[in-house]
Amino acid sequence: MTLQLWSNCRIATMRADAGTPYGLVDQGAIVVQGESIAWVGPHAGLPAELAQRCALQHDAGGRLVTPGLIDCHTHLVYGGDRAHEFELRLNGATYEDIARAGGGIASTVKATRAAGQAGLIAQSLPRLRALMSEGVTTIEIKSGYGLSLDHERKCLRAARELGVNERVDVRTTFLGAHAVPPEFAGRPDDYVDAVVAMLPVLKAEGLVDAVDAFCERIAFTPAQVERVFQAARQAGVAVKLHAEQLSDSGGSQLAASYGALSCDHLEWLGDEGAAAMAKAGTVAVLLPGAFYFLRETRVPPLDLLRQHGVPIAISTDCNPGSSPCTSLLLMLNMACTLFRLTPHEALAGVTRNAAQALGLHDRGVIEAGKRADFVLWDVERPAQLAYVMGANPMHQVIYRGTIR
Amino acid sequence: MTLQLWSNCRIATMRADAGTPYGLVDQGAIVVQGESIAWVGPHAGLPAELAQRCALQHDAGGRLVTPGLIDCHTHLVYGGDRAHEFELRLNGATYEDIARAGGGIASTVKATRAAGQAGLIAQSLPRLRALMSEGVTTIEIKSGYGLSLDHERKCLRAARELGVNERVDVRTTFLGAHAVPPEFAGRPDDYVDAVVAMLPVLKAEGLVDAVDAFCERIAFTPAQVERVFQAARQAGVAVKLHAEQLSDSGGSQLAASYGALSCDHLEWLGDEGAAAMAKAGTVAVLLPGAFYFLRETRVPPLDLLRQHGVPIAISTDCNPGSSPCTSLLLMLNMACTLFRLTPHEALAGVTRNAAQALGLHDRGVIEAGKRADFVLWDVERPAQLAYVMGANPMHQVIYRGTIR
Ligand SMILES: [Zn+2]
Ligand SMILES: [Zn+2]
Repeated sequence: MTLQLWSNCRIATMRADAGTPYGLVDQGAIVVQGESIAWVGPHAGLPAELAQRCALQHDAGGRLVTPGLIDCHTHLVYGGDRAHEFELRLNGATYEDIARAGGGIASTVKATRAAGQAGLIAQSLPRLRALMSEGVTTIEIKSGYGLSLDHERKCLRAARELGVNERVDVRTTFLGAHAVPPEFAGRPDDYVDAVVAMLPVLKAEGLVDAVDAFCERIAFTPAQVERVFQAARQAGVAVKLHAEQLSDSGGSQLAASYGALSCDHLEWLGDEGAAAMAKAGTVAVLLPGAFYFLRETRVPPLDLLRQHGVPIAISTDCNPGSSPCTSLLLMLNMACTLFRLTPHEALAGVTRNAAQALGLHDRGVIEAGKRADFVLWDVERPAQLAYVMGANPMHQVIYRGTIR
Repeated sequence: MTLQLWSNCRIATMRADAGTPYGLVDQGAIVVQGESIAWVGPHAGLPAELAQRCALQHDAGGRLVTPGLIDCHTHLVYGGDRAHEFELRLNGATYEDIARAGGGIASTVKATRAAGQAGLIAQSLPRLRALMSEGVTTIEIKSGYGLSLDHERKCLRAARELGVNERVDVRTTFLGAHAVPPEFAGRPDDYVDAVVAMLPVLKAEGLVDAVDAFCERIAFTPAQVERVFQAARQAGVAVKLHAEQLSDSGGSQLAASYGALSCDHLEWLGDEGAAAMAKAGTVAVLLPGAFYFLRETRVPPLDLLRQHGVPIAISTDCNPGSSPCTSLLLMLNMACTLFRLTPHEALAGVTRNAAQALGLHDRGVIEAGKRADFVLWDVERPAQLAYVMGANPMHQVIYRGTIR
């Protein structure tokens, strides 16, 4: 297998045990073998015989190198958009006006159901490419706008297909319990039965990497969510949860008791939830884009998460209703500006901790043995990635060991 | 002169007198002669003999077409950045800690003075290109980090040079009264004398399209600003003002009394200021990026501006300290999300009203006789430009009649 050398790098390894901010290695080198990192460290320490075996040599020009970015919470595959609703609201329409006019999530469900798989792929591709252009090498995509077996399957297949067509890893999450579809209006428990029935089918078809649900007064109760989690346990699939976004409903404790990979949003998280998450190793996925777009005022309890040592991830939450966002770098800025994360925490949130939120242990840090997914940036310091608003200093992406 | 036809357009003409939102023309056509628009309207109304004379024919594919975007308030030319300061603050440093460590505007003045003209151009070019990639065809660039005749001249020349090298119109504004430089510490009036002396020199060198000042408790008093405005009047240059950002200091009335092109920021604007601006035809330039980045809580008084009929523009305020922003589309989103502008108001704010804020009457709308600066977008509705966060649906820019 050909060995490749990237030299003249300033490497933000993002290793937790590095003891330096960002696990920074100056004057660094990375040796890639096939799809994996074979060696990483200060160039001065690179064994001569290893250097000699590198048939391909790349000069990073002193650029900053980070792990490939990981967007661990998106609803990227959907039909239509909600720009019209956005405009109506700014012209004075109330949420009720919009609901009466068929707006809200119902309109996205309608447009998603109306689209074919190819159409969904075509509509979602520009969003995926925008994220990729900023160095995203792994992305999670949830279903949840189909809300029936056939339509959920179509969405999950579209998501998988995007990962086959594009040079990016797609992880799919089944979010049947996102909203109650119109045909189950007033019968949420019956719809939860339907979700519980869909899961093993979709899982058997190889379409489900994880199971998610929306636990909130306006969505599903903890008892309903638990039924979905039991089905997930039975199917042998890890769980995640949209929890404590608009109220503290206890979803985080419930999710932690099922060993959830992550709880997401968490503006209303309390001490007990944070403690439970820490104990279960559950990642807190913060979504500043939705906080911003919905004009929320209560920020997630950062100090609580830090005190309990809960790992923090950051994501776009890319979705048409509450975060029509396709810039993970903008989320770094919002995480720092709105939530007061440090740039170091923000970058860990889209690399190491985002990998953990997806249950992936082969990526998210630049370290021997990990996947060779990394990004060269036209910046000097990692903090610049979080500081800029709307710039894209991406220079080059290395995905699975080759230049993308 | 060759005539060109763009057909199959959905044109947001942004004409104020159109009577339809965005001055929208469906199934529209645009005829360009040289650098100007010769004809615009529904394709069905295009005179056949004019169509026949169009040697070049372009199919817009049904895309939305808007005027070229105008970023009417930037400090784009500067040395260094303030990412380190951003990081220090998020790690708990106070503003005083940072000032003691040589941070704040002083650090940008130092880095700007240390850079040569070519270096400034090189550092500023990626910022300019980022804005251009989103359809910006006219941009204002202020000086104000040089703060001495030689260094202000260098910055203004760098700005002009950027406009010569790139296919974009650059308007330069002399902002000598931005901050008191270290060599005048404690002697602001002496520094205002120096600014007043610089102006006619720089104006004579053809480097000054307008004069600006920063009127605020932490910057210059209305009395000091007035001395700068008097010098501007004497030099025959229009004025603008950074006013009422952090307090209501009466700057807007002062500026209006000098017939200012614009007053910018305006979070603390009161009724009298708005009335004075309306009477003087002064544009209100709102800067949501700085509001967001500084975590301000008081939004500009939109209703007051609407009541008085003050034209509203939107801009990036691109600068290293309070708005390290190079996305005018993001500003549309922030103007709507944070300030509750309608998407129509936001788009007028980066086209028609932004042109007015620069005293330019030959652009900002798609109309016969105006400059042929327009943008084709991969969206269906104008509201989508303000709705998305971090996407860039720009398809093609026509600058002075040719594809950029
Ligand atoms: Zn979500
Ligand atoms: Zn400014």
